Amino acid sequence: MNSITIETNTNQYDVHIGEKIRHKLPSFLPKDYQTIMIVTDSSVANLYLEDVKEAFPSEQRVFTSIVPAGEVSKSKDAYFDLITDCIQRQLDRHSLIIALGGGVVGDLAGFVAATYMRGIDYVQVPTTILAHDSSVGGKVAINHPEGKNLIGSFYPPVAVIYDVETLYTLPEQEIRSGYAEVVKHGLISDEAYFESVLSQGGIHKLSNSILTEHLLKGIKVKAEIVEKDEKEHGIRQYLNFGHTLGHALEAELGYGRITHGEAVAVGMLFAMKVSEVVFGNTSPINKLHGWLKKNRYPMEFQDIDTVRLVNRMKIDKKSKNQQIQMVLLKKIGQLEVREVNDELLLKIVKDFFRELVMN
Amino acid sequence: MNSITIETNTNQYDVHIGEKIRHKLPSFLPKDYQTIMIVTDSSVANLYLEDVKEAFPSEQRVFTSIVPAGEVSKSKDAYFDLITDCIQRQLDRHSLIIALGGGVVGDLAGFVAATYMRGIDYVQVPTTILAHDSSVGGKVAINHPEGKNLIGSFYPPVAVIYDVETLYTLPEQEIRSGYAEVVKHGLISDEAYFESVLSQGGIHKLSNSILTEHLLKGIKVKAEIVEKDEKEHGIRQYLNFGHTLGHALEAELGYGRITHGEAVAVGMLFAMKVSEVVFGNTSPINKLHGWLKKNRYPMEFQDIDTVRLVNRMKIDKKSKNQQIQMVLLKKIGQLEVREVNDELLLKIVKDFFRELVMN
Repeated sequence: MNSITIETNTNQYDVHIGEKIRHKLPSFLPKDYQTIMIVTDSSVANLYLEDVKEAFPSEQRVFTSIVPAGEVSKSKDAYFDLITDCIQRQLDRHSLIIALGGGVVGDLAGFVAATYMRGIDYVQVPTTILAHDSSVGGKVAINHPEGKNLIGSFYPPVAVIYDVETLYTLPEQEIRSGYAEVVKHGLISDEAYFESVLSQGGIHKLSNSILTEHLLKGIKVKAEIVEKDEKEHGIRQYLNFGHTLGHALEAELGYGRITHGEAVAVGMLFAMKVSEVVFGNTSPINKLHGWLKKNRYPMEFQDIDTVRLVNRMKIDKKSKNQQIQMVLLKKIGQLEVREVNDELLLKIVKDFFRELVMN
Repeated sequence: MNSITIETNTNQYDVHIGEKIRHKLPSFLPKDYQTIMIVTDSSVANLYLEDVKEAFPSEQRVFTSIVPAGEVSKSKDAYFDLITDCIQRQLDRHSLIIALGGGVVGDLAGFVAATYMRGIDYVQVPTTILAHDSSVGGKVAINHPEGKNLIGSFYPPVAVIYDVETLYTLPEQEIRSGYAEVVKHGLISDEAYFESVLSQGGIHKLSNSILTEHLLKGIKVKAEIVEKDEKEHGIRQYLNFGHTLGHALEAELGYGRITHGEAVAVGMLFAMKVSEVVFGNTSPINKLHGWLKKNRYPMEFQDIDTVRLVNRMKIDKKSKNQQIQMVLLKKIGQLEVREVNDELLLKIVKDFFRELVMN
């Protein structure tokens, strides 16, 4: 088992990564909790809920709330229903919420923990590759019909307990989704990691040791950034590489049509294209494009309304005074946030989607 | 004009108190904001909204959202509507929200600021006596049908700008409501302040200098506690003196039937009664009772269901493992949090409400 400690200005917590550690979950908690509420989704509940429940001794009150699987659960209604569950089960400020699942469950349950009675403890127990990203760093949120994650907090968990055994049951689409964020961590950190991900990672094979290595490295990349800039005033924005178009595309297609990671994958290609226009550099865009095709990432989007898409990009959280700010790639491991004006962006978007279909 | 600086582990902001300072509001802000949204209620809008809007130069984008006056606006629907307003006006992370009004507006707009895009700047511009308490300390919240302030955050404003001129238009009930929290600040700090409040404060006269003195002292009492314990792990709980029964009474009667301060006034009498039972001491309960009667605080509640009331007290945020924790008064300026068991509490509640009517 591996452990990484995340230490920011305001708090500290451990990320534990290992096989079968869900069965020993209480041993990774910073203290005993008398009342616990596990939040999970309908898919994960069938697979791992009993394991986690059974890990607790019977004198602890352990409740469960199961939300429908998928992005639809990051809604205000699901959020308020969970708050009501907390009240009805008499959770208090000394209770614990366990977010057992992927990014949706983590974001949703984390936001419940952040705002129930002005904040109670919670732990992230990720069960997807994608959640190696979302479970670390304390970003929690729900969606607004107008855009993703527009309602949320910075509210770190008291621990992240990552049982890699849970990743072996992931469907192909979920592996694709998760590996997009792994690729992102490669692009924003170093070339060797990026190359390793492209040559050894993907949907075709999921070797334990390689996967764990990729995830550990990804979490370390993220941890290093979050430790320096927890509240995203500066370099934490780099972690949004690929997300400006990615979020807009998810919202425009309707949440759930493609996964978050699949949208980010397209968004990264797009951000590279914008980078080439802005910096006049060459990026590994073709290499990434080839890998995405090989791993069957969705790349063709019929009848995309590009004007609406650009308008959606404007409600991105990085926007400043109604101007889109994009994270651009100078070279692998070197990024910059740049304001890109709407007209230029619209032109690049149009070209981009046309070329994407043709290539 | 007076200024007090609040300095906690995580942040620092100034409280400015003076006459007519709403007209110079931008000069009290820590920086220039290009986009601003003023949140206020239907009563305050008629009186002071134009003053605040006119204080800003025309190149700044200033929007307004007006919510219905009263506790009803601390609802999830009002909250989500304001978030939608933020999105539609294209507020971003560099924008400002101004909470212009009493505690309801401050709590609601503050919670919007705390959670929109994971947190943007806001200022408190209180217009009630009660808000001398709620505007300082960073507690923001909305209500759940099951209880008050159950959804919220600790999220401090970037400044508090308190124009005491706005207090001269307050109706009698609002003065009563506010003075209850002033009395509380007296009880938890020192006898001289408490005596001054009882002899010189209240609904019958509202002299500028006395009122400002009482408010300044109250804010200092609160500031000192918040600086030591921002997140309410310890002594900040003392500020909840009178609130265990107070919150339960508000919820049981239905929000808006009596004001928050009126409920806290009854709650303080009750907490004193419990203190006498638990500590065997004598408290200034008769003195306070006399003052409350003189100032026409509502003291008779017909057909109170005391069992339901005690159950409501259990979802208080101080509760621990389903046991009610009450802030009790040993003597003026000396408090203690004690677990009080349900049976004892139920007995005292029954006696209390009977005696309240008879006295």
